Amino acid sequence: MPRDVPERVAVDGDRLWRSLMELAKIGAYDDAQTGLRGVSRLALTDADADGRRLLVSWMKAAGLTVRVDAVGNIYGRRAGSEQDARPVLIGSHIDSVASAGAFDGCLGVLGGLEIIRTLNERGVTTRRPLEIVAFSDEEGVRFGTDMLGSAVAAGRIALEDAYALKDADGLSFGEELTRIGFAGPHGVRLNPPPHAYLECHIEQGPLLVRSGTDVGVVTGTQGISWQEILVYGRAAHAGATPTEMRIDAGLFAAEIVRHLRDMVESGDFGKLRATVGHLSLHPGDTNIVPARARLTVDLRNPDEDEMVRAEEHLARYLDGLQGVQDGLRITARRMARTSPVAFNARLQAIVTREADSLGLTHAVLMSGAGHDAQEMAAVCPAVMIFARGEYDGISHSPREYSTAESCARAIDLLAATALKLADEE
Amino acid sequence: MPRDVPERVAVDGDRLWRSLMELAKIGAYDDAQTGLRGVSRLALTDADADGRRLLVSWMKAAGLTVRVDAVGNIYGRRAGSEQDARPVLIGSHIDSVASAGAFDGCLGVLGGLEIIRTLNERGVTTRRPLEIVAFSDEEGVRFGTDMLGSAVAAGRIALEDAYALKDADGLSFGEELTRIGFAGPHGVRLNPPPHAYLECHIEQGPLLVRSGTDVGVVTGTQGISWQEILVYGRAAHAGATPTEMRIDAGLFAAEIVRHLRDMVESGDFGKLRATVGHLSLHPGDTNIVPARARLTVDLRNPDEDEMVRAEEHLARYLDGLQGVQDGLRITARRMARTSPVAFNARLQAIVTREADSLGLTHAVLMSGAGHDAQEMAAVCPAVMIFARGEYDGISHSPREYSTAESCARAIDLLAATALKLADEE
Repeated sequence: MPRDVPERVAVDGDRLWRSLMELAKIGAYDDAQTGLRGVSRLALTDADADGRRLLVSWMKAAGLTVRVDAVGNIYGRRAGSEQDARPVLIGSHIDSVASAGAFDGCLGVLGGLEIIRTLNERGVTTRRPLEIVAFSDEEGVRFGTDMLGSAVAAGRIALEDAYALKDADGLSFGEELTRIGFAGPHGVRLNPPPHAYLECHIEQGPLLVRSGTDVGVVTGTQGISWQEILVYGRAAHAGATPTEMRIDAGLFAAEIVRHLRDMVESGDFGKLRATVGHLSLHPGDTNIVPARARLTVDLRNPDEDEMVRAEEHLARYLDGLQGVQDGLRITARRMARTSPVAFNARLQAIVTREADSLGLTHAVLMSGAGHDAQEMAAVCPAVMIFARGEYDGISHSPREYSTAESCARAIDLLAATALKLADEE
Repeated sequence: MPRDVPERVAVDGDRLWRSLMELAKIGAYDDAQTGLRGVSRLALTDADADGRRLLVSWMKAAGLTVRVDAVGNIYGRRAGSEQDARPVLIGSHIDSVASAGAFDGCLGVLGGLEIIRTLNERGVTTRRPLEIVAFSDEEGVRFGTDMLGSAVAAGRIALEDAYALKDADGLSFGEELTRIGFAGPHGVRLNPPPHAYLECHIEQGPLLVRSGTDVGVVTGTQGISWQEILVYGRAAHAGATPTEMRIDAGLFAAEIVRHLRDMVESGDFGKLRATVGHLSLHPGDTNIVPARARLTVDLRNPDEDEMVRAEEHLARYLDGLQGVQDGLRITARRMARTSPVAFNARLQAIVTREADSLGLTHAVLMSGAGHDAQEMAAVCPAVMIFARGEYDGISHSPREYSTAESCARAIDLLAATALKLADEE
């Protein structure tokens, strides 16, 4: 895979691709709907444990000193010429959603590993140590809180609160982490903090591929607001209950879904995005008016004020909806909330300069998704690089795809940036 | 429980009530939402098997000759003075939905049993045999087709088709019937047909209790149309996917729910009732735009022409909705369909006269729910009696309730009608 970049930073794109494909075998499944091979490697499942063990073996084979902390974050350190200098940390995550592709998170971790392998081959020693990290449970699908491992490392979430989180079967994060053997002995806090944190990730959006741009320099991440909404109606016989006597929890849940889209389309809340990813009815039988509906709401907004306004509007809407009918009750519970985060301006400038010097076309954009980098941004300068995805950048789907060349280009840039920062005073 | 009815037909209301409460212990559960004790005795579960065994033991204790047919229907026969005369069949079902009360179906079966017990005590012999039946799987919740046992007995559904029905776990009706030991040796068809079929059931609606009327004389049942609708969208990242690029299966499912209520409220389809009892999203994660939605639609209509028009309208609506966005696909599959059934006019007249002679106030009404009687109406004269429910007649809920007195009154009327018919030539 010849790329027109200085040999100093050119990683082995084929080896990177093979590593991505090898890791994607763990948790692989045949997706009935798309007809594609997908990945399901939910946090702290057996598949996640298998993926972690593979990563640790690769880290050790690359000569890294591996440590696992108490929240399951896996660090691999390569010494620098200055033993005590704070390291440049490169990372992301290897857990996935239930219907994923091979790239989300994995590119950032395995890209970091590929940089180490390349430096080893060339006998390059950096001034500062380089450290690779795979954070625990970035997706938040199973235990309900995303960026969990990095949030604990950054001190935003207490370790005991992370341990107490439960999945749908009532299993706790702490129990499951112990069960898979990744409740490590090391402290969770990054103290002293790294010199900088770098994360390369697929864009998960269409901008790079539609414009034919090589890489993205990421200015920050959107705010994320997750809520669980419960609608309590009244179970009743589907045939015998007159319509006007029904308190149909499913009907009101449907109204909420529609209203969220209306909020987005109104333009009243800036660049709001809203998703109802989960909706279920209880008891869920064909011939029973639903007694209860459970739905999740995922709001995203690059602007904190607009996000707060959207949350307040939704709360008022739910309050008003509840008043529509006697006996109807609607509750909302916050599951997770992060504010928009701006990445370090100096690091953005370095990434941009390095992209120019590598001859990579680049776009400056904001991340639609949440990332571990936004947690790291609270403890050290942090920045992200986006790799171009295919198929309009679709992600969280087996259709998620990036080419070997797009991946290699983004990791070349990650390498150049890491080397620059690792040689800083 | 003194009631002002001739001793000839007065059943033991306390004993009837005790039997209802005893059977309700099987499959009982604590319902979190209502705080009430509910019943969950889905067809062919262990709880259903326990209920069946209790019923058989009661039938035998009452001197009935018990036979179980190949679809699991349980018959108990009391001989008449004319050995070969076709019997008067009294029945209903004892399976329940997942969140039920003590009365739906059980009142009709245990009411029939109570009549037998009363006649035994008084040494009354009828001309025709009296037969009690508990039909298999009336609710249809688990295997997707309601009135299954009676439909097989009436010849509308073939035994092998019933056996092949599968539940959500892939277990077949035939396997499960065999597993619980109720795949009986007797033929399923009622040949020759009974002289008449009588079924007493709680109203499951508000008309009797709101008007303070003792019992209902039922003119027929509504048509029922069950469909499963699948909406195929595209999984995508909730944060990174621009709204205009989403094919959100959940949003379109919500539109369908809303449209069904609009159809009902438009009045364009007569006395249509519509229920979406099940709605689920796949993969169902907070941060993924749903790839797929599954919903069930339960339509009811007392008028066949109006029902057909509603079905056709819904099909056109789904077709049109599918065209709204490229990549969106919507399929509908018929799960069950019955036409409205009118009960035998002569039998309705007899029930009315007997109610008058017992001094019971009565209303003439149509059933909102489907019942085994509508299947039996295809093979012999059939009629139903409704008992008054409480709490606006709510049913398919742990709130379902009827008083001991309301139950006893309706079974008095059932007894009077059965005795009248059993003495006919």
